[in-house]
This record gives sequence, structure tokens and C-alpha cells, in this order.
Amino acid sequence: MIKFGIVGYGYWGPNVVRNIDQLDGSKVVAICDKSPASRKKIQKNYPNVLVTADAAELMSSPEIDAIAVITPVWTHYELAKAALENGKHVFVEKPFTSCRQQAEELIELAAKKNLRIMVDHTFLFTGAVKKMAELLNNGTLGKVYYYDSTRVNLGLFQHDVNVIWDLAPHDLSIIDYLIKERPEAIVATGETHLNSHEDVAYMTIYFPNKIIAHINVNWLSPVKVRTTLIGCEKKMLVWNDVEPDEKIKIYDKGVNISSREGLYNLLVNYRSGDMWAPQLDRTEALKDELAYFIQCISEGKNPHNDGVAGLQVVRMLEAASESLKNRGSLVRL
Amino acid sequence: MIKFGIVGYGYWGPNVVRNIDQLDGSKVVAICDKSPASRKKIQKNYPNVLVTADAAELMSSPEIDAIAVITPVWTHYELAKAALENGKHVFVEKPFTSCRQQAEELIELAAKKNLRIMVDHTFLFTGAVKKMAELLNNGTLGKVYYYDSTRVNLGLFQHDVNVIWDLAPHDLSIIDYLIKERPEAIVATGETHLNSHEDVAYMTIYFPNKIIAHINVNWLSPVKVRTTLIGCEKKMLVWNDVEPDEKIKIYDKGVNISSREGLYNLLVNYRSGDMWAPQLDRTEALKDELAYFIQCISEGKNPHNDGVAGLQVVRMLEAASESLKNRGSLVRL
Amino acid sequence: MIKFGIVGYGYWGPNVVRNIDQLDGSKVVAICDKSPASRKKIQKNYPNVLVTADAAELMSSPEIDAIAVITPVWTHYELAKAALENGKHVFVEKPFTSCRQQAEELIELAAKKNLRIMVDHTFLFTGAVKKMAELLNNGTLGKVYYYDSTRVNLGLFQHDVNVIWDLAPHDLSIIDYLIKERPEAIVATGETHLNSHEDVAYMTIYFPNKIIAHINVNWLSPVKVRTTLIGCEKKMLVWNDVEPDEKIKIYDKGVNISSREGLYNLLVNYRSGDMWAPQLDRTEALKDELAYFIQCISEGKNPHNDGVAGLQVVRMLEAASESLKNRGSLVRL
Amino acid sequence: MIKFGIVGYGYWGPNVVRNIDQLDGSKVVAICDKSPASRKKIQKNYPNVLVTADAAELMSSPEIDAIAVITPVWTHYELAKAALENGKHVFVEKPFTSCRQQAEELIELAAKKNLRIMVDHTFLFTGAVKKMAELLNNGTLGKVYYYDSTRVNLGLFQHDVNVIWDLAPHDLSIIDYLIKERPEAIVATGETHLNSHEDVAYMTIYFPNKIIAHINVNWLSPVKVRTTLIGCEKKMLVWNDVEPDEKIKIYDKGVNISSREGLYNLLVNYRSGDMWAPQLDRTEALKDELAYFIQCISEGKNPHNDGVAGLQVVRMLEAASESLKNRGSLVRL
Repeated sequence: MIKFGIVGYGYWGPNVVRNIDQLDGSKVVAICDKSPASRKKIQKNYPNVLVTADAAELMSSPEIDAIAVITPVWTHYELAKAALENGKHVFVEKPFTSCRQQAEELIELAAKKNLRIMVDHTFLFTGAVKKMAELLNNGTLGKVYYYDSTRVNLGLFQHDVNVIWDLAPHDLSIIDYLIKERPEAIVATGETHLNSHEDVAYMTIYFPNKIIAHINVNWLSPVKVRTTLIGCEKKMLVWNDVEPDEKIKIYDKGVNISSREGLYNLLVNYRSGDMWAPQLDRTEALKDELAYFIQCISEGKNPHNDGVAGLQVVRMLEAASESLKNRGSLVRL
Repeated sequence: MIKFGIVGYGYWGPNVVRNIDQLDGSKVVAICDKSPASRKKIQKNYPNVLVTADAAELMSSPEIDAIAVITPVWTHYELAKAALENGKHVFVEKPFTSCRQQAEELIELAAKKNLRIMVDHTFLFTGAVKKMAELLNNGTLGKVYYYDSTRVNLGLFQHDVNVIWDLAPHDLSIIDYLIKERPEAIVATGETHLNSHEDVAYMTIYFPNKIIAHINVNWLSPVKVRTTLIGCEKKMLVWNDVEPDEKIKIYDKGVNISSREGLYNLLVNYRSGDMWAPQLDRTEALKDELAYFIQCISEGKNPHNDGVAGLQVVRMLEAASESLKNRGSLVRL
Repeated sequence: MIKFGIVGYGYWGPNVVRNIDQLDGSKVVAICDKSPASRKKIQKNYPNVLVTADAAELMSSPEIDAIAVITPVWTHYELAKAALENGKHVFVEKPFTSCRQQAEELIELAAKKNLRIMVDHTFLFTGAVKKMAELLNNGTLGKVYYYDSTRVNLGLFQHDVNVIWDLAPHDLSIIDYLIKERPEAIVATGETHLNSHEDVAYMTIYFPNKIIAHINVNWLSPVKVRTTLIGCEKKMLVWNDVEPDEKIKIYDKGVNISSREGLYNLLVNYRSGDMWAPQLDRTEALKDELAYFIQCISEGKNPHNDGVAGLQVVRMLEAASESLKNRGSLVRL
Repeated sequence: MIKFGIVGYGYWGPNVVRNIDQLDGSKVVAICDKSPASRKKIQKNYPNVLVTADAAELMSSPEIDAIAVITPVWTHYELAKAALENGKHVFVEKPFTSCRQQAEELIELAAKKNLRIMVDHTFLFTGAVKKMAELLNNGTLGKVYYYDSTRVNLGLFQHDVNVIWDLAPHDLSIIDYLIKERPEAIVATGETHLNSHEDVAYMTIYFPNKIIAHINVNWLSPVKVRTTLIGCEKKMLVWNDVEPDEKIKIYDKGVNISSREGLYNLLVNYRSGDMWAPQLDRTEALKDELAYFIQCISEGKNPHNDGVAGLQVVRMLEAASESLKNRGSLVRL
């Protein structure tokens, strides 16, 4: 039985608490939040749990095995470091940290103390992403040409980060998981309209072997769009995450081009076939993720969404911020 | 009665011919195409029209008032120049020319000879674009924040140009028409998978006053998407051109942010209201455009989609090509 | 403070309990369910509430002002009768009763005892139905021509009733609310494939003044459809309840026909205009409904969804069952 | 080479003429239309064809092998009879005739003269219907439970027939083609709002073995809907004919119910799986149909959409009209 202390009971925290509470191998023993209103809510919903405004209480508690850090990104490093130093495993909200150095330090610390870090890349545990990984890994789709995601909606404006740090980590964690190549360089463009942070932004990520990824994020869209196209050699895929059913459609479509004799003898051969929407696993992603974390702790193995995976995302975010500042200059990774 | 000679009877030419033929103020007197199969088709459909493989015949004909150039882009300059030199008005397929110098030379030549150039920016004459212009011009939408277009489909691969030169001119001509500011700088990224030209590409255009435009073009998409979001201060708009009805939806949505005392006292105020899909003019755009060209010729006035408008698009395409070569370097206009 | 006893904590009961518990003017004091598992769940979620397997305990409790009957339809009459006889107001799940006589008896009993009956026609309290009522009542839509609803999905098969008694009460309560005329006659057709009850069925309801309603219900559909067309003289409306946003679209469309001189001089005049999707109230319908019930009890007034409204729905269901048995014979009301 | 005379060059006639003209084995030699404007149009498009206002000219012409009757339904019988009596094969627009007796007489006459009748049930030659027939015939879908079609739009109002005679023949011909059982009885309901004919109507068709069909037709709908659900034992199908792609979706969904011990021990087992949209043949249906007609004439064999198929549809239409008059009385076939 892994005993958890949770820091942060805002928007996402309650979901983490509920899932840890309901899983067989884990238990919530303490929750910390600075807001009196949140603490009151915790006390009502979880009368047997220790409630506090002071994270240090959790860090020093000998009863607690693991800490879940569900707070704004700029607090992750301090909290995770304290947890690790006190010998506790850490589950951290994404993005992992505010910068690369922090991530590297935490990874090293966890390694030294033989503790687990899991970064909450929840999407990797959805039926949709698991299916896409399966189709890429078993060769159904073939070689990847591009990953093109549109993730736009109205708000919610963040105080402390721009729209890339807010919305792109989803796609970056998925890209890191699905595409086996390491990113080479990043170009980001965008604009700030209302706030002091960009609210509309675009990221291009160059990979080896002509793989390209693009992410369109926007807090000022009148409609909510969550659509990703993945073009591959054998088949092409559309993932529409706002569809209640048929989130993933696989098209037996493609193009073959063979140049015969010079420019004007290109032979273009379009292939068009059936479309297929596989049934997806509908288990709550966060539940699967936390069960996996408990299993990793028990078995002493690193999860695939560990600190290193979290660092990959942070590196791409840092590069995007740098490129954005220079209106799209190429930033090599 | 304006008498037309048409050069090029491939994919788009027949539409231009049919419309000129049916309009009251114009008549097709000669059509030129290098392909014997095309010439045979012309002869069958238009038995009273002169059919030739030699464009020079049209240029020198004293019977012809105007030439429509509906050929690949790399031939536009030579054909348009010959027409103008022979005292004929010119209707040119988009993009206007292969480079800026050619466009400037043609503009100057037409001015000197007092002839009209119209670049076939057909989209400007659709019910959708006319309605968007109206809503922007009369203040309904308010100040523009961004123009974000996705224009993707499977093929058709072009031999001589990349996907930006093939698909982006539509959006660039619309942007030039709708946004009153002049573009400042362009960033383009993309990748070449099958051919020697980019088949997936992304363009960001920076304007003054924090207006930003983005165009996503792709020849390797399993689905056809023609969706443009326009975010403005008062209202926001979605233009979905593959919808048979309700192509334009206007959302009474928005965000107001007022910073009170420092970073963490931002007041975010979301406004959400009705959606409204105005009825659009359904006249064939090309018919309206050609009627307008005939009127401009008759009245001796320059159309809004004249050589200068064509040049604006060519400049943006050139800048995109340059940026693309350097993986997204900022190219100032 | 109205004190409630709830009978039935199955699929819908927890929602009723949660809302009564959260409203200012009401309180849940006792819950009855025959299933030990349900009782265990209640005890966990509502530790301060009396939990019992015996409804009679609630009926006789002097502490309880009102009983909510959230059980299968064949139990409604006995439970509601006991509640009324014990001087308690009654909130009853729809359909109100299994037959007309039961409904009439309960209405009479409540009147005699000066108690309130509310039948849980939840849909009447949704933003969509409230907006449609507003548009019909203020004359925006004009005279009604037809109401045409499709309400199909896969399952859930009921043990004790056919698909009409399961799914049609939603539409019948809405029709009774929106259409001011009284139904004249009903025709129902359908078929039984798997069970002993019809799983596919169609109902036509004839009203005076050429108003016609049609309801298509089906437990064997691969897709979930919740679409209602309402054709009116001035405007036409589509209500798509599976859309997350823009559930209601109003079309400025119509037809005028004027016969000039005989059959072949009909003048048909189609009117086509804008489409408009009004913003809808998003409050939870059940919350509004229960707040209204508490208000009705406090003020001693009958709700619009009272026993008489419940009886209207039961009469139409009975007529449909009779027609269905005779494969579509007309049953007058 | 089969030589055709065409009677009727209104809305659909030009498509029939174009296809016959382009097919290898056929030729249009004469076209008849009462309207001077139509005759003028014919002369322009087909300068080498005989144009006349008198159908008798075609009937008596020894040059003509087959007559296509593309006129209003009330004229079909006279024209087809004249053609058959003059030894000509007949292609007749749907519905075949105005009543059962006319259809039977024409069938008998054609048999006596050894001539072919084809009724223009164009939908049977679409990629969608061919695919559905294939999936039903090869057992993929399993036993049919129901066929449920919605075919509604705004207008076009017909002068001489109601909405069932206008829109239902499409579905009736498809049902006759796909469902191997013979219909037993029909129930139709509807209402007349603007004209002297019903503009909103609903038809239920009872077949043996618990197969049920339902058709919803409406001239007063703000939106165009062409959706058919086909529920079968093994799989379920949605045919959405207004989709440009993916018109047919096949769902691996179903329900198994097994009653164990009495009513309350029903075991309901829902099966849910992948969805699949097969690629469909995109050949123009009318072209395939007319090629098939020419082949039938050449080989002296009856087409599957012969007079008998036409009669099946007319019988269902007649029964629907009779039922409609009596507000849904069951009419046995």
C-alpha cells in the first residue's frame, strides 16, 4: 500500500486524489493546499485525511511514501526536490519544471536516492494515444511523414505562462512518445494580444528523416478544436479528440511519386481505400497512469513518462520560448 | 463587347471560357492550347471559336481586346508581357508571376499602355469572402487579432512549385484583401517527403498592431480541410469552406483582460453569446469576377485585384520560399 | 426547509439526492432502496441520512415533508399514493403512472389533500426546451406545422416496458409543453426483435390545426441520435441534443404557396435566410426543476409539470400501446 | 447500337440524354419536349438530333429502338404503352405508373411483345446501395431487423403528387432490392400544410420475420437529411448520403438478449467494436444503369429493375396513399 501526500487541490488535484483513493494499492493520507476554501472542501470529501496549508508537513511525515505535486509549474522544482530529499517518490504535474537545469537536477537526485519520478503526461494513457502507438509500433501506419496538431479554444488564460507552455505540453509529450527520433530544431511564432504572454502561437519541430511536427495553440479561438493529423507512408490518421466516439480514423490513403525522365515525367499514384475507426479503450487515463506509477514504485522500475521524458518536453518548451522571442528563429536542440 | 483570347484550356481554363462566353459584355473569339486533346475538346464545345496551338496568333490578332492567361505560373510573365505589348488587357491566373521583378515590370508596362491587369484571385468574389470583408469593414468584428487558415488535402502534387505556391495564394490574396495593414515579416517551415518540392508547409505572417496570420498547407492530408479562424476583438469567425451551407459562423465570444494590481490580479472576463450564420451570396465567384473585369475595362479603372494585388501575393510567396530554405528564418518584407 | 425522503437510489436517484441536498430550501433526511449495495453507497456518501430498505418507514415519518419516487414505473402509483395519504408532497419519476386511472386517482387525492405532485419531466427545464418555448410563445417561430423527433441509441433495454414507454416520455412531455393544442389521435407502429417488448417504434400524433408530431424511438441503433425538427410558418428549428454547443439552430427558411389559377399555376415561393444559434442557459435542468418544486410547495401552487401534465403523457403512451398492438390503428384521445 | 428517343427534357432528362449520348452502345436520335425553351436548349446542345414537341413522332419512327420516358408520373402509362405497342423498349422514370393496374398492363404488354422495361431506380446503381446489397447478400450484416430512412429537405413542392410519391420511391426501390421478403402491410401518416397534397409524411412497412421499414419524408425541413439506419443481427449500418466521403459506416455493434429465469433475469449483452467505412464505387449511377439497360436489350434479358420491380414500388405507394387517407389504417398488400 503506497501512501500519498498531495500538494495542490485546485482544478486537477481532486482527480488525482479521487483516483489514488480508489486504487487498490494506494491511499491518500494528507493533502496540502494554500486556499482555505480548498481545504474546507477536502475536509468535507475526505474526512479521514490530514489537511494542511504547509507542504513541509507532508515532506517530513514518515507515514508518506510518495508526493503528488499538482501545483503551478514554477513551484514544481522546489516541491519535488524537497520530496526527493525526504526519500519520497514524486508524481509531478506537466510541464515537469520551468527549465532544463531544474529537470536535470531532479532526475539526478532521484537516481541517487533510487526514487521514482513520474511526470503527469496523462494523454499517453488514453485509449487514443495507446492505439496510435500500437499502430506506429506494429508497422500498420508505416514511416511517419508529419504530426500536425491543432489545440485551440477560448481561454483559460494563465497568469504565469504563455499558450505554448499551457497547451503544447500535451502534444510534446505525445510526440516524444510516438516519434522515435530525437528533435533537431524548433521554430516558434506567435503573438500577444491581451496579456503579457503569447495567446496565439505556432511551433514547428524538425526531426531527422524528414519528419516534421507542427502544433497550433490558441487561447482566442471561438471553437474548441483538438485535431491531429498524422501522415505516414502506408496510412494516414486523423485523431479528433472532441468526438465522443470514433476519435481515431485511419485512412487507407497515400501517394507514390516516381520520377521517370526529368521533371515533367513525374508519375503520381494516389491510393485511396477504406476508412477504419478502431474501438478504443475507455478506461480513465489518469487511473491507468496512477496504477502504473504504483506498479513502478513497487517493482522499482522507471516509468516511460519519467523525469527524462519530462525533460524532453521542457527542452522543447524552452527552445520554443527562445524562438518565439526572436520571431521564429531556428533553435537547435 | 470585349473580345477575349484565352491561353490555356486545362483544368481551370474551361471555367473561364464558359463564363466569358455567357456574360453579356464579352465574347470568346480564340483559344490556344498546346495539347491536341484539349484543342479537340474546344472545337467540339465551341465550334465558332478560333482554336490554335500558337499563343502568338492571339497576341497579334487585331480582333482581340483582352487575353486570359490560364497557364502554369512560370509562363505568366512572357504571355502577359506579349499581350500588354500588343495593347491587350490581361486576366492572369494566380499567382501573378514567378517573382517580384516580373510583376513590377508588368504593372509598369500596363500603366504605360493604360491597360488593365486582373489577377484571378477568385476567392475575393465568393459570398464567404465578400461577407467577411463586409463584417470587417463595417466594424462588426472589431480589430483583427489573427487569421489562421488550414488548407490541406491529398494531392494534387504540382510539378513545378511547392505546396505553398500551390495552395497559399488563396489565403494570401484573401489576407491582402481583408487586412488593411501591410505585412512586415514572414516565417515559413516545411518538409519535402516525396517530391523535390515541399509537400507540407506552414507560414506565419507578422503584421503591425499585433495582427498575425498563419497558413497550414499540405498535399499529404487524408482529409480535405478548408477552415479559417479569424479572431477579432468584438467577435470571432469560423469559415469552413467545405460545408455546403453555413460556411461562415460568427461567434459573439471574446475575452477582456484587465490587470489590476500586478501579475496575479489579472481580471479575465470571458464573453459568450449567440452564434450566427449569415446567408451568403451564391453566385459563381468567377462569373462575378469576370463581369467586374469587363466593367473595369469599359470604365478604364483598375480592379482591386490588379497587378499590385498580385504583386503583394508574389512578395509573400517569395519571402516564404526564402524562409523555408533556411528552416524558418525571419524574412522582412 | 423542505425535508425529503427519497425512494429509489438506482441510476437517476443519486442525481435527485445530490440536488436536493445542495439546494438551500431542501434537505434529504431519508433514502430507501431495496438493494444492499445501493444502501451501502448511500451510507458512504450521506452518513447523516436515514437509510432503509422499507419505504413505509419514510411514509410514516413525521419528519418528512415530501417524497421523491425514483423507481420503476409500475411502482409509482403505490408509492405516490402512500405518500399523499400520509400528507406528503410527491416528486415522481416519468412516466407518471402505468395507466390513466392511476394518474387520475393520484391527481384527485393530491387535490383533496392540498398537496403538490411534480412529475419529473426534466427536459422542460433544460436551456434548449426553455428557449424553444420562448421562441414559440413570443411568436418568433410562428404557427407550428410539425414536431419530428428521432431518439435512438443502442440499448439500454428495459425489462418491463417497450421502447416507447422508455424513450418517448421525453418527447411527449416536451410536446405537451410546447404545443398548445390537445392531441386528437395517435398511430404507433413498431417491432419486437429480441425481447418481448418492442425495441423499434414510431409514433404519429395528430393535433388540431394540421399540427402533426412524430417520434422515432429505437434501442437498436448503432449511433446515438437526439434530433428534433420543428417546422413553423415563420422559421424552422433544429434541436440537436448531442451537440455540446449550438444545440438549437433557427433557420430563417420557409415556403409560401399561393394557388393562382388551377393546379398548374401554383406559385411556390421559397424563403431562405440566416441561421442563428442562440446561447442557451446551461444550469443543470434537474437543479432548476427541484428548486421550482420547493418553491411550488412553499407557495402552495401547482407546478406546470404537475399530475395533469403527467397524465397527458400517460394517456398518449396508453394510446400508443393500443395502436401498436393493432399495427398502427388510429386511437382517438 | 441502340437508338433512343427521349420524351421529356426537364430536370432529369438532360442527364439521361447525356449518358445515352456518351455510352458506346447507344445513341440519341430524337428528343421530344412540349416546352419551346427546352427544345431550343436541346437544339443548341445536340444539333444533330431530331427535336419535336410531338411524342408520336418518336413512337412511329422506325429508326428508334427504345424510348426513355422522363416525364411526370401521370403521363408514364400512355407514353410507355405507345412505345411498347410500337415495338420499342422502354426506360421509364420512377415511380413507374400512377397505379397498379397500369403497371400490370405494361408488364404484360412488354412480355407479349418480348420487349424490355427498365424503371429508373437510379439509386440501385450507386456505390452505396451496391455495397449495402453486397454486405447483406454475403452475410456480413446478418439478418435484417429494420430499415429506417429520413429523406427531408425544403421543397421542391410537386404539383401533382404528395411528398410520399415524390420522395419515397427512392427508399421503396432500395427496400425492394435489399430486403428479400415481400411487404405484408403498410401504415402511413402525414399532414398537408400549404398545398392540397401532404408535405410531411411517415410510412411504416411490415415484412415477415419481424423486419420493419420506416420512411420519413418531408418538404418542409430547414435542413437536407438523407440518412438511413439499417439494423441487423451481426452489424449495423448508417448510410448518410449527404456526406461527400464515408457515406456508409458499418458498426460492429449489437445486442444479445437471453432470458434465463423469468422476466427479471434477462441477460443483456451489448457488443461494441470497430467502425468501418468501405470505399465506394464512384461511377455515375445513371451511366451504369443505362449501360445495363443497353446490355439487357442486347442480350434479351430482363433487368432486375424491370416493370415488376416498378410495380412493387407502385403497390407500396398506393397502399401508403390509402392508409394516409384514413390517418394510418393498416393496408395489407
